[in-house]
Amino acid sequence: MGFSFLPKEFNFFDLFERQVGHAVEAANCFKELVTNNMNEDSLKNMHDIEHQGDEVTHEILNNLNKTFITPFDREDIHALAKELDDIIDMLYTIANRLRVYKITKIDKNLIEFANVIGESVRAVACAVKGLRSMKNAKSISESCVEVNRLENVGDSMRDSMLGELFETAKDPIEVIKWKEIYQDAETVLDICEDVAHVVQSILVKQA
Amino acid sequence: MGFSFLPKEFNFFDLFERQVGHAVEAANCFKELVTNNMNEDSLKNMHDIEHQGDEVTHEILNNLNKTFITPFDREDIHALAKELDDIIDMLYTIANRLRVYKITKIDKNLIEFANVIGESVRAVACAVKGLRSMKNAKSISESCVEVNRLENVGDSMRDSMLGELFETAKDPIEVIKWKEIYQDAETVLDICEDVAHVVQSILVKQA
Amino acid sequence: MGFSFLPKEFNFFDLFERQVGHAVEAANCFKELVTNNMNEDSLKNMHDIEHQGDEVTHEILNNLNKTFITPFDREDIHALAKELDDIIDMLYTIANRLRVYKITKIDKNLIEFANVIGESVRAVACAVKGLRSMKNAKSISESCVEVNRLENVGDSMRDSMLGELFETAKDPIEVIKWKEIYQDAETVLDICEDVAHVVQSILVKQA
Repeated sequence: MGFSFLPKEFNFFDLFERQVGHAVEAANCFKELVTNNMNEDSLKNMHDIEHQGDEVTHEILNNLNKTFITPFDREDIHALAKELDDIIDMLYTIANRLRVYKITKIDKNLIEFANVIGESVRAVACAVKGLRSMKNAKSISESCVEVNRLENVGDSMRDSMLGELFETAKDPIEVIKWKEIYQDAETVLDICEDVAHVVQSILVKQA
Repeated sequence: MGFSFLPKEFNFFDLFERQVGHAVEAANCFKELVTNNMNEDSLKNMHDIEHQGDEVTHEILNNLNKTFITPFDREDIHALAKELDDIIDMLYTIANRLRVYKITKIDKNLIEFANVIGESVRAVACAVKGLRSMKNAKSISESCVEVNRLENVGDSMRDSMLGELFETAKDPIEVIKWKEIYQDAETVLDICEDVAHVVQSILVKQA
Repeated sequence: MGFSFLPKEFNFFDLFERQVGHAVEAANCFKELVTNNMNEDSLKNMHDIEHQGDEVTHEILNNLNKTFITPFDREDIHALAKELDDIIDMLYTIANRLRVYKITKIDKNLIEFANVIGESVRAVACAVKGLRSMKNAKSISESCVEVNRLENVGDSMRDSMLGELFETAKDPIEVIKWKEIYQDAETVLDICEDVAHVVQSILVKQA
């Protein structure tokens, strides 16, 4: 019922909603993985989510290339799809790194990071889902501010964890491993912030 | 003989053909360098190729800025030129790193990587050369699929090499060096995949 | 007095002038920080400059999203603002890293890098300020050439510093720290070169 001149446009919102859904799943799965000391199921699950994320990204970019009229600027759709995919990829990269480095005892720092990442990805999801209607501008904007705040929290966390690591670690090999893992964890929050920036620029253009 | 309304367009195909030519040369030279344990000639050769690659890239981007009509989207031409240049740059970066780290004994892993990189860059070359005519769409697409496959192969290779390195290496300094080199080698395959993505999006838009 | 049809355009030049001003301040502050062995004041100052840089970047991007007519291509304005911001961010990142790694004795190499960075950022500032008028094309172009030259100087510096580090350092932890710091310092020069490339492409388009 009803008739829309721009039926194709709405697909983008559905696709982005699916994509942020996968990002939230990835963040939950990552949390599970690190709290359960790298159980096999979470690792396999992580891999599946990464794959599903790739497929939605591909679908968005393909639709973008074939669609003339888009609900917002093409380059913003492109950036949004790419960066939401990067969130999932980065979480998978860390999970895979923990496996490759044969880390079986996850330290409490990484669990702390997993919590902040979960909060940030959920705020990203709120912001992206809100884009369906500019009536949500205020709450979208608040979610973006929250993502920016959590990125700062992550910076401080990484700095204090690295400071501690360099001061206390005896084994240089352990320093090499954990330094990279903490920096990667913080990178997830950087990517979330990049998504927030794209969302904020979409808001400005529509205002 | 014959007459073309779009003579300028054809320059881009010639320039891209030259650029992928340099990329293939770089991959061959890299193979030679690592199989011949860093001989001076290959290193110098690598540097020359990198320089020639820069020049074509510059020429493409300059032409792009001065040309109004282009055979495909400006941003795709820009991305293609940049990423083909990145392939060559990354290969030179690894070669230079091997020199700076005074590595004289190349391990068999890196030779294995050089082979996969060679295969991937040749597939990239097929894809890019095919762009002259959309009649090649099927074979272009197959080359892109091959590049994606080789990127997955590279991921597994890097993972198993890093796993082995962390498990067996005694000297942390060696871990620092080789970890970076394996990760860089895999990055070359990532960049090849980026090129394949650009090519695939050009295909979709022309379809 | 006088009347302009494009009053909005001129804002961009003022904003870019403010932004390169902050970049020069950041380079000066970085020099001070490393020559004075990490005094607290310089570190705080660095943080303030980074914050001011963020604000101008935000202002430029916001104006860009709200302005229809721009003095040069939108994507060039965007790239210029982002990369000038990246210069400041990277300098702050290094300063913060020195703090986190509790490095109190700065080696002469980093001071040498701080000098080259200062030169490069000042050349970037000349190039960017020159954009107000295409009469400056020749001097803008010369500044860009200088930035490119200094990037090559930085490459050689980093290579010889890394070579020395790997050859002489006894403590792997020290290698981890300084390797990252030298590479970051060279990255500042890479970003300056990226700015020069954007400026050069603006020149080509206006020619």
